[in-house]
Amino acid sequence: MINVRVILNILGLFLLIEGISMLLPLGVSIYYNEGDIAAMGISAGITMFLGAFAWLLTQRKDKTITKKEGYIIVSMVWIMFSLFGSLPFVISGEITSYTDAFFETISGFTTTGASILNDVEALPHGLLFWRMMTQWLGGMGIIVLSLAILPIFGIGGMQLFVADVPGPTPDKFHPRVKETAKRLWIIYMIFTISEIILLTLGDVKLYDAVCHSFTTMATGGYSTKQASIAHFSPYVQYIITVFMFLAGTNFVLSYYGMHLQFNKIVKNEEFRFYIFILLSFTILITAFLWFGNVLPFEESFRNSLFQVVSITTTTGYVTTDYLQWSPFLVVIIFMLMFVGGSGGSTGSSIKIVRVALLIKNSALELKRLLHPRAVIPVRLNKKSIAPQIITNIQAFVVLYMMILAASTIIISAMGYDLPSSLGSAAATLGNIGPGIGAVGPVENYAHIPDFGKWLLSFLMLIGRLELFTVLILFSPAFYKK
Amino acid sequence: MINVRVILNILGLFLLIEGISMLLPLGVSIYYNEGDIAAMGISAGITMFLGAFAWLLTQRKDKTITKKEGYIIVSMVWIMFSLFGSLPFVISGEITSYTDAFFETISGFTTTGASILNDVEALPHGLLFWRMMTQWLGGMGIIVLSLAILPIFGIGGMQLFVADVPGPTPDKFHPRVKETAKRLWIIYMIFTISEIILLTLGDVKLYDAVCHSFTTMATGGYSTKQASIAHFSPYVQYIITVFMFLAGTNFVLSYYGMHLQFNKIVKNEEFRFYIFILLSFTILITAFLWFGNVLPFEESFRNSLFQVVSITTTTGYVTTDYLQWSPFLVVIIFMLMFVGGSGGSTGSSIKIVRVALLIKNSALELKRLLHPRAVIPVRLNKKSIAPQIITNIQAFVVLYMMILAASTIIISAMGYDLPSSLGSAAATLGNIGPGIGAVGPVENYAHIPDFGKWLLSFLMLIGRLELFTVLILFSPAFYKK
Repeated sequence: MINVRVILNILGLFLLIEGISMLLPLGVSIYYNEGDIAAMGISAGITMFLGAFAWLLTQRKDKTITKKEGYIIVSMVWIMFSLFGSLPFVISGEITSYTDAFFETISGFTTTGASILNDVEALPHGLLFWRMMTQWLGGMGIIVLSLAILPIFGIGGMQLFVADVPGPTPDKFHPRVKETAKRLWIIYMIFTISEIILLTLGDVKLYDAVCHSFTTMATGGYSTKQASIAHFSPYVQYIITVFMFLAGTNFVLSYYGMHLQFNKIVKNEEFRFYIFILLSFTILITAFLWFGNVLPFEESFRNSLFQVVSITTTTGYVTTDYLQWSPFLVVIIFMLMFVGGSGGSTGSSIKIVRVALLIKNSALELKRLLHPRAVIPVRLNKKSIAPQIITNIQAFVVLYMMILAASTIIISAMGYDLPSSLGSAAATLGNIGPGIGAVGPVENYAHIPDFGKWLLSFLMLIGRLELFTVLILFSPAFYKK
Repeated sequence: MINVRVILNILGLFLLIEGISMLLPLGVSIYYNEGDIAAMGISAGITMFLGAFAWLLTQRKDKTITKKEGYIIVSMVWIMFSLFGSLPFVISGEITSYTDAFFETISGFTTTGASILNDVEALPHGLLFWRMMTQWLGGMGIIVLSLAILPIFGIGGMQLFVADVPGPTPDKFHPRVKETAKRLWIIYMIFTISEIILLTLGDVKLYDAVCHSFTTMATGGYSTKQASIAHFSPYVQYIITVFMFLAGTNFVLSYYGMHLQFNKIVKNEEFRFYIFILLSFTILITAFLWFGNVLPFEESFRNSLFQVVSITTTTGYVTTDYLQWSPFLVVIIFMLMFVGGSGGSTGSSIKIVRVALLIKNSALELKRLLHPRAVIPVRLNKKSIAPQIITNIQAFVVLYMMILAASTIIISAMGYDLPSSLGSAAATLGNIGPGIGAVGPVENYAHIPDFGKWLLSFLMLIGRLELFTVLILFSPAFYKK
């Protein structure tokens, strides 16, 4: 039985937290006094009130949550955050269409960064701050979800990391989740604050430094500048590259790093593959841009590194219009959209650990054909991976591709060509942001019809929550007995 | 131990068969007397002589073939057929580049139909006949390979059909393969002859009727006309549609059909899914073309039906330049390239049975998440499918996508944009022929650089032989002990 009371209770608590979070941008609104104080204040008030109301009304003694309730809560939290998070944009009148406001907000909470705004710099500072903060909150939520909550439910192949999360033994749900979450949040905070400091040292205003640190750590990609990171100096671009890299790394490894256990980092196969992908494609693109006399060496290297890290980690910041590069490099950028961040990072898309395991498995499949009776397991970090995890990962990738194909067909029915429809589907499903074609790095999503925006919003949601977590709610079996 | 003598013996026999096959086009050359008699004759002579030489020189008493030798022979037969099959084009000077001649020939034997010829009608009748015949031979080979030989090795998820092939019990390799092959060839012959008769009734010259029957039954798609099937009347187009449909149907079902066991056909899930895909997309495209006032009703229906059947069965005949349709319809055509023919047909690509099983499995994966301890098998035709078959199919699709992605990147490095590089990789790996972009239905593959042609030739080969069959030869484990 699904207990609605339990669900409402937890959703109420989360809504209250969202309302309280809005007090920070409200403070920014008050500081800059640009006419968005009322909108921010009313939104915070409504959100806090409804949250507190639902929470208090459904108080209960039994704190247990079933697996099914867990699934419902996870999807509902992201949807609810987006519904209420869009209030400031709607109430202020800065975004006139509700569809657009919802798209912009869910793009924030899912750390996607696909925007419908034609001029972000026209937004008042308070609203813009909230827009950036949605990503930071979304990133924080994802870290806890992927490293502390989903492994307990056994979703998304992330069981691989269960043993790795430093924390108390998993016999009690609540203490374990709380303790793990606390450790992860501390890392998230340390990185955010470090980036703020390093950006301000590079002559970035405190406001912009905070905002960009929010969206870097979430691998979100929203910027306060219309030109994205192209607006800033090379120093700033390098600093942001470093933090995108960290945000796309498994946070458990960062935990080890902070405890100076570097041997655990160096030995991690996913991390090695991550480095390998980033370096090899950076070298390749640098070589093409430099030898092709497109840009001088340093600029070639900087833009290549920045865009490779930005797309692979699913951040989506832009320092250059990569669609102006040669078709070859556009194809490479497109393919990198499917790699994604590390497991246990704020990066999304298919994820490096899955890609690495599938490549290994394909090679082993050939061996298995030769020795059909032998059990030949895939190994990661010298441990055998259970066959059902490999099956789950394969099912994930196949489902990912089927959803991508179906969405591409639907978007193309709205009049978009193959690169644009494939690009927008891949960039939202992978939570990247800018794509290729009509949704390229210097374009935005404003021109997509309303129905398309709702579809892409759905893609952002399921992409962010590892597909199965959301899609299971559409399975009739979910509601049986 | 791999026995080279055994391999050479069998390859020699096959080469002799190829040489003897060349006598038929030689007859055509003599009949038309257009200057290609010498080229055809010398090619047939060399091929027969070398074949007979290798065969006779390696005679042996022990007729057993090991699994590893089987793998080597299968790949080598297709490569050898293409190497020698290209001789007539090279010796006659009709195709001046050897790369082009090889590409054109392997495109024939793999039943792909991707051409480098700018004007097929300029070829002498004998050579053109040989070009069409390569596809027919390739199709015949594939039927036997996929229904009689590969199931014994357990490759490609085609074990699903082992039980279905009517034939003696599988305790003896040779008698079983021979008996099954004979039955399949009879069906292949009956279909080919029926099509020839029906085409000649539609005022198609006997020469063209034979040639097109060859390439229809192989789902090959080569035509003797530059305009492909657009050259012919609506009657001819409908007839060819029917035979493309039959060629893309599991030949075991055709066997049942000829024995009037229609209930076995109607109950077959893959067949139902095949019909469903063809009908739904034909209706969709017809509606778009008709309501969009692109074409009158009959023309809309005929072209939609023809192109949907042609692309889905991986034939690649053309009645209209579908790239001139709306972007939406181009995207649909592109997606259909991944469906492919039925298992046990001459159609290639991913294949309908795989697509159907993966869709079913994804839905069940959600159920499995809810009941992690329950064993929930995928069912096909009311029988449970073993988990390792599902895993193999998943590995196949994942590998297919990885090869597609890597090839797309390499082709784009030659200066092609995303639709062209993705299109040419998909159209060759899926053995379709015409793709999208620069290799669209009214274009050809002549403009692709030599290195690209060799890569695409390789894609045709591995796509035709179910990936694993060829790729296993690149696995170091293959050569151990």
